[in-house]
Amino acid sequence: MRTVLHPARAVALGFLAAIVVGTLLLMLPAARTGPDGAPVLVAFFTAVSAVCVNGLAVVDTGTYWSGFGQGMIMFMFQCGGFGMMTAATLLGLLVNGSPRLRTKLMTHMETRTLGLGDVAAVARLVLVVTFAAELIIAAVLTLRLRYGYDLPWGEAAWSGSFHAVAAFTNAGFSIHPDSMMRYAGDVLVLLPMMLAIVVGGVGFPVLHDLRNRWHDPRHWSLHTKLTLAGTALLLVGGTVALLLAEWHNTRTLGGLPLPDKLLGASFMSVAARTAGFNAVDIGALTQESLALHYFLMFIGGGSASTAGGVKVATVAILVLLVLAEVRGHADTEAFGRRIGASAQRQAITVVVLGSAVVVAGTMVLLAVTDFPTDHIIFEVTSAFGGAGLSTGITAQLPPSGQLLLTLLMYLGRVGTITLAASLVLGGRRMPYRYAEEHPIVG
Amino acid sequence: MRTVLHPARAVALGFLAAIVVGTLLLMLPAARTGPDGAPVLVAFFTAVSAVCVNGLAVVDTGTYWSGFGQGMIMFMFQCGGFGMMTAATLLGLLVNGSPRLRTKLMTHMETRTLGLGDVAAVARLVLVVTFAAELIIAAVLTLRLRYGYDLPWGEAAWSGSFHAVAAFTNAGFSIHPDSMMRYAGDVLVLLPMMLAIVVGGVGFPVLHDLRNRWHDPRHWSLHTKLTLAGTALLLVGGTVALLLAEWHNTRTLGGLPLPDKLLGASFMSVAARTAGFNAVDIGALTQESLALHYFLMFIGGGSASTAGGVKVATVAILVLLVLAEVRGHADTEAFGRRIGASAQRQAITVVVLGSAVVVAGTMVLLAVTDFPTDHIIFEVTSAFGGAGLSTGITAQLPPSGQLLLTLLMYLGRVGTITLAASLVLGGRRMPYRYAEEHPIVG
Ligand SMILES: [K+]
Ligand SMILES: [K+]
Repeated sequence: MRTVLHPARAVALGFLAAIVVGTLLLMLPAARTGPDGAPVLVAFFTAVSAVCVNGLAVVDTGTYWSGFGQGMIMFMFQCGGFGMMTAATLLGLLVNGSPRLRTKLMTHMETRTLGLGDVAAVARLVLVVTFAAELIIAAVLTLRLRYGYDLPWGEAAWSGSFHAVAAFTNAGFSIHPDSMMRYAGDVLVLLPMMLAIVVGGVGFPVLHDLRNRWHDPRHWSLHTKLTLAGTALLLVGGTVALLLAEWHNTRTLGGLPLPDKLLGASFMSVAARTAGFNAVDIGALTQESLALHYFLMFIGGGSASTAGGVKVATVAILVLLVLAEVRGHADTEAFGRRIGASAQRQAITVVVLGSAVVVAGTMVLLAVTDFPTDHIIFEVTSAFGGAGLSTGITAQLPPSGQLLLTLLMYLGRVGTITLAASLVLGGRRMPYRYAEEHPIVG
Repeated sequence: MRTVLHPARAVALGFLAAIVVGTLLLMLPAARTGPDGAPVLVAFFTAVSAVCVNGLAVVDTGTYWSGFGQGMIMFMFQCGGFGMMTAATLLGLLVNGSPRLRTKLMTHMETRTLGLGDVAAVARLVLVVTFAAELIIAAVLTLRLRYGYDLPWGEAAWSGSFHAVAAFTNAGFSIHPDSMMRYAGDVLVLLPMMLAIVVGGVGFPVLHDLRNRWHDPRHWSLHTKLTLAGTALLLVGGTVALLLAEWHNTRTLGGLPLPDKLLGASFMSVAARTAGFNAVDIGALTQESLALHYFLMFIGGGSASTAGGVKVATVAILVLLVLAEVRGHADTEAFGRRIGASAQRQAITVVVLGSAVVVAGTMVLLAVTDFPTDHIIFEVTSAFGGAGLSTGITAQLPPSGQLLLTLLMYLGRVGTITLAASLVLGGRRMPYRYAEEHPIVG
């Protein structure tokens, strides 16, 4: 195993290759409106953002890029989202799957046969789910744009498809400079998008479990239960908190009637983790809302999904660990199951390393720019968590700052799905154990 | 044990009682300059800050309070610091000490004899260390103020004693409105104070270990090694980082010659965790330095010391856990010892709950005021971590904000030393175990 390509490393290199190809494609003069091609930094930033289904942008997607360029970007985040879901599912199977399958996959890796059979089976399922969901949402959006906004059929279909794919893949790219702000209050646009975001962001293992055991919630896996409960809690809690924080802010939800307030807050809560569309102006949010966004964006969505962040189940494990400790229980438990010690250690590692990356990124960006701290933290968390929301400073950052954001986007998406797998597969038993000692805590 | 006063609860109530008495004393007209007594909120805030050796202030200590009032405040932080060290040492012994001593103490608790013998032994040692250190530092400072600044003997002795006690107890109160800024560059004032801060903040268990086994570092406890190594790393790392962040800032260290730059940065690094004196204007620091302070203040000093924060050893355990996981080791190790699983769970719990308190405090303070986010985070972390540094907004906060800070000061100091003890002593074995399951992480 040590001599062949580690599966986690293969995934990391695959995304890197996609970024390089995407950069070259976006540098073609045909990708950009006007006669010249895009500068390398713009093309690179956009390719990273698209492949990592992030959505941060240094130029306006709808006017800077040609139809061909926008198509390339859509193709990249479609492939990126599909790749995230497939790669994370396979790595997850490798780590957590049945011993039989794990051995089978590892043998494939060792004999360099790449386990094409298993990869194909998972990929096929992901493909079916992806296209079925995207087709339905695209159709709904197209009809709404045709009859509600009088767009010609072609334009309605293009906008509907682009935003349906961007929603399901949680990429959050929009061909509008104001994202979804022109549809604020339109439940027939926002609700389908919220559905696409949630379904794409809940993760393949959960979708798989739901499909196979829809009528039997008691036999869902612990992962499914944790992810669904955590997602519901975050959506409802996020909506209520954002509603309170923006209730009197006339630049966002303040002046709206109650149903529009509710719709706006729930769309914000759904999109913050980690779709990244916005139906209100992010730059006009209160400081409380910005701070709420840090956490929603850092947590993100479900494992092996198109969503980013450290993932709902990871944070759930950490919270359950603390609750167990406070209640004096030796075991960390949920839904009548005990969470394994190694899963707990991995969860802590992912959260601590994720926090360290966000902190380091914030420090560097504070040092190379003069923007206020709350906007810097927002942009760094958005890049790392994959939300792609922006207070508006990303386009104004110096090249060093933009390069830092590309690194954060890559680490945030590719890093989190490969880390847990590398941890487990790289594990080795020590030939001896030291004597135990108990330092004072607190 | 369930029917008698839990030792952790006794400690919490003891500090509460001291705060109530302190508030009443500070409301006496004699405590304040001018004819009237202090309003209850000012007296309460000051009493909490003094008893919790925090140092945040809503009024100028040197001019608002009379000599009697200043003496009361000094008495409160002297008792507070002494109480912190003694209580945390006793609770630590209860939790981590030899089984014999633990049983003995618990028996005392159960029979309501209060374990006066053990309490007295620890208290006597703490007293000797405290007064010896404070006397030496007070003498040095007095001589310096007498001969370097031509203060009359009485004034020099008063200022020297006040600041020596405030330094050793990490209280950080000063009779000067600008804290130590008038002594910036004076190594003969700042160095003794740094020594007092470090000795007071390293913790009684470490001092005890050093005194008994000075020539035999190999047999120091793991706790001593972790705390000393962590403290050294934080002091050097903090100095270098702050030096870089303020190198060109002409309002702080920018215009100074190299030795003064070094002295200023190292004093800042020492005082940030958690003494809270400042020799430069906190309000003039760069955003990077403010962000660095968040972490230094949150981590704080050594366990069972006069310093606050979640403690150096706690953070060290968390870092070692992550390092072990990344390297694929099943055991968390340091200095040839394995760190117990329960200590790891406690460390995670203390850090997570501490972060939750800081986050909740930040959210509430953001909601009730309009100050910028970076200053709000600074003030909340300073209150929780016990540093008592201020960007200047504490005195301008509305009553609700000031009350929130008192709650944070109390939770940050009394909470962290009682939490670990309550966790362990409240622990109970469950009669059954659930089946294990391994959710997907990341
Ligand atoms: K996104
Ligand atoms: K202090």
